[in-house]
Amino acid sequence: MKISCWFTYNNLEELYFTGKTVVVIDVLRATTTIIAAFENGAKEIVPVNAIEFAMKATSGTFGGKTLLGGERNAKKIEGFNLGNSPLEYSADVVSGKSIVFFTTNGTKAIVKAKFADHLFIASFNNIAAVAKKLLELNLDFDIVCAGKNGGFSLEDAVCAGKLISEIMQKKDNVDLSDAALASVKLNDVFGIDFYKTLTECEHGKLLIENGFLDDLKYAANFNSSNLVPQFSGGSIKILEAQSS
Amino acid sequence: MKISCWFTYNNLEELYFTGKTVVVIDVLRATTTIIAAFENGAKEIVPVNAIEFAMKATSGTFGGKTLLGGERNAKKIEGFNLGNSPLEYSADVVSGKSIVFFTTNGTKAIVKAKFADHLFIASFNNIAAVAKKLLELNLDFDIVCAGKNGGFSLEDAVCAGKLISEIMQKKDNVDLSDAALASVKLNDVFGIDFYKTLTECEHGKLLIENGFLDDLKYAANFNSSNLVPQFSGGSIKILEAQSS
Repeated sequence: MKISCWFTYNNLEELYFTGKTVVVIDVLRATTTIIAAFENGAKEIVPVNAIEFAMKATSGTFGGKTLLGGERNAKKIEGFNLGNSPLEYSADVVSGKSIVFFTTNGTKAIVKAKFADHLFIASFNNIAAVAKKLLELNLDFDIVCAGKNGGFSLEDAVCAGKLISEIMQKKDNVDLSDAALASVKLNDVFGIDFYKTLTECEHGKLLIENGFLDDLKYAANFNSSNLVPQFSGGSIKILEAQSS
Repeated sequence: MKISCWFTYNNLEELYFTGKTVVVIDVLRATTTIIAAFENGAKEIVPVNAIEFAMKATSGTFGGKTLLGGERNAKKIEGFNLGNSPLEYSADVVSGKSIVFFTTNGTKAIVKAKFADHLFIASFNNIAAVAKKLLELNLDFDIVCAGKNGGFSLEDAVCAGKLISEIMQKKDNVDLSDAALASVKLNDVFGIDFYKTLTECEHGKLLIENGFLDDLKYAANFNSSNLVPQFSGGSIKILEAQSS
């Protein structure tokens, strides 16, 4: 099994992903929030890579059961129902709903990888479930970290390393790209106290300044979810019954 | 002092570098080769970001004292005098010469950063000299790793971490970006035996397959040079007498 890792999605071509198995990670906060929404009963999430497209997508097609969620530069967007805090996506708000979702980096990374054969959503919250799924598939795969505006995000790299480490505990002969190997070593150092890492990384500090410390606590809950959201046919869904 | 690091140059805008202090690293092999050329008496190196531009630049302007060097995908380019192996840039070949230089990643990274106030060339061979220069300047700086076709290269990240570690040994209150912090930790793991790292990283393995094992040995010579090549006015030069 060959595992490749990308610390940003920006340099990758859409067609690169054709036929591949891909995991997208954006710990702060898009993929954490997507998992939270499904934990609380959301029906589906439609990731979009432009605000204009988000507005258009909710203007009629989905009737009254659609919410518009996301952020730009960590802040809720005017006219949106929800921001990008996992704590906003509670059962009373999202249960049974379709959510059109735009974020600065995470949803763009998901849309970029849309031609993948298998496209999974991971955060620190569902690593064991995603690892189990990847081990069942037993295919080469790519991890795409959302990063931050084209640059490296420590928290995404550490989460990628944690996922790879989980797989390597259960599988021999894993071949790692440079970035995959680096992320494993970064998890060895920064994954021991992931909450501390979140409070000290660049994006975490920005979120704390904006009043989102509780989001960091939420994002650091290792394996709090058994769900594996999957992008297929234009939206993210929970495709099958999953249990621990 | 704030130290930022970029694992690829591709997502950065040229104007980002305006007024900044920048160090470009491409261990395998552009910056290693540039330093080798100056150690052997080259007069100047003109980095270009397109082969066509390299051809044009040598067609007349520089008379008979100009060499054309570089590679595309690790291989020498037809019509070029030299490839991208530091071992080719011996004194009998390069002494007193201007060299127009094109490589797949390294020279593109240098050209991208051309609006920097200070733009230095570093490899594992001249880390102490570059660190000394940066400590004298005492300015915030950015390290730009050439990476590999828009992706992460372990050897460049480790070299960046080594440079930052050298500076942190002599200076307190250094503020690190996520990528700078990650590179320091990667140097702690992979910098202990840098030659071994070069033989095991993706680009190193490719070079070994192409018969360039000796280049890896050369690239792993820690502090074999006291020179700090600097880009200024369109070409890279040794701007002042430098000694250990």
